[in-house]
Amino acid sequence: MDYKEQLIAFFKDVDARCILGLSIDCVIFGFYDNQLKVLLLRWKQSDEWGLPGGFIYKKESVDVAAQRILEERTGIKELFLQQFHTFGEEVRYNRAEISRKLNWPDNSTRLWPDRTVSIGYFALVDFMKVTPTADFLTDEYRWLDVEKLPPLLFDHNHIIEVALKTLRVQLSWQPVGYNLLPEKFTMPELQRLYETILNRPLDPRNFSKKMRALGIIERLEEQRKGGAFKSPYLFRFDKEKYKKALQEGHLSFS
Amino acid sequence: MDYKEQLIAFFKDVDARCILGLSIDCVIFGFYDNQLKVLLLRWKQSDEWGLPGGFIYKKESVDVAAQRILEERTGIKELFLQQFHTFGEEVRYNRAEISRKLNWPDNSTRLWPDRTVSIGYFALVDFMKVTPTADFLTDEYRWLDVEKLPPLLFDHNHIIEVALKTLRVQLSWQPVGYNLLPEKFTMPELQRLYETILNRPLDPRNFSKKMRALGIIERLEEQRKGGAFKSPYLFRFDKEKYKKALQEGHLSFS
Repeated sequence: MDYKEQLIAFFKDVDARCILGLSIDCVIFGFYDNQLKVLLLRWKQSDEWGLPGGFIYKKESVDVAAQRILEERTGIKELFLQQFHTFGEEVRYNRAEISRKLNWPDNSTRLWPDRTVSIGYFALVDFMKVTPTADFLTDEYRWLDVEKLPPLLFDHNHIIEVALKTLRVQLSWQPVGYNLLPEKFTMPELQRLYETILNRPLDPRNFSKKMRALGIIERLEEQRKGGAFKSPYLFRFDKEKYKKALQEGHLSFS
Repeated sequence: MDYKEQLIAFFKDVDARCILGLSIDCVIFGFYDNQLKVLLLRWKQSDEWGLPGGFIYKKESVDVAAQRILEERTGIKELFLQQFHTFGEEVRYNRAEISRKLNWPDNSTRLWPDRTVSIGYFALVDFMKVTPTADFLTDEYRWLDVEKLPPLLFDHNHIIEVALKTLRVQLSWQPVGYNLLPEKFTMPELQRLYETILNRPLDPRNFSKKMRALGIIERLEEQRKGGAFKSPYLFRFDKEKYKKALQEGHLSFS
């Protein structure tokens, strides 16, 4: 089968096995090179980028479907995916436009329903531990800087915006850095992560004071070697205190 | 038309005009008589309770549908409804059981799809300002204490649990009391609201100190008269500071 035949077979299979009019999109965030990045795919034989997503089987919970879809499309297993918002605007795509942009045969989106509501899930991953592999619909995966995204297919720019907003809110009551940073990190790296998510500069002294007052990170004896400047100390999250902070939320009324 | 004929006509209309397999459920919280309450309906000619909900038109965004459904079913207009979670378990209802419990004709759920995914919205309202009116599917509305709910239809107990959990999380970063309390309230009333949402007792002195330190409430010169005890002072939210706190989240990194 060539790609076009594969596509038609795929949509027929979706039509037979899946709930119609409902999809899942996954926003996978990673932090690397002082940038917050999101995992995007380039659709086969096109220059179009989008989020990994897919459809829910008729007999499958949406949470299970999200895990399966992410694994099928990227090879990434057992990630903590969090549902954050359902996207139900009346018009989220134009079938003819999608077919044209993706160089699909004219009748390939024929089976698509008039509209599709999409349930958004997101995850924060340690960039170094995740290596996505492309499925048959995808030419390649790339981690793109959330601050410099190209126009994506469907409403995927909007979906990423809402995921980022959710992340910003969660930052105010839970220490999200734990999943995004490597085990050991410097204070400037942690600050840069917070600045990226909040999208504004923070004062280094106040930040350091605040983070240490939360009591969820500990300073190690090791220092980061090799830079041009004074070697900065390394820190890591205190897993027990981190868990406790998560359970309590930030504002404790004990 | 009698009720059974009305029902059949209603489901036919839903089938023709609405997206199949997707619904909306609304969790409306109010605070009264020192209890957090949720607005529930008793289905026509039955003893079964559930949330007000409904279906999305083929050409209508889900946010607009949520407002319309709430207004059609309860008469409540222009409420700030917040989407909080989408419920997509494989089995959320048993058609035959629903028909039996609601004394519906045997074939009334015939047109229902095998499963329905439901998008949950919630709102916090000033109990005194909202008077729900029942639609043709409903015998009555009642505000029931969230701590003493009967077994509800569908997965509505679970939906309310998740809405409560969302409220608990939001309490840690935004002052949710503004929408739930009357304009003027006492510190014990505010504390009781927080205790109800958090589901645990709080120390009165610490609570008062913490709330006043947030700087979002102001003490009035008035006192609540008529009780058996020393008249407590009345407070109200400082609307400007409240808005600012909402925008910033609790954990400010300025």
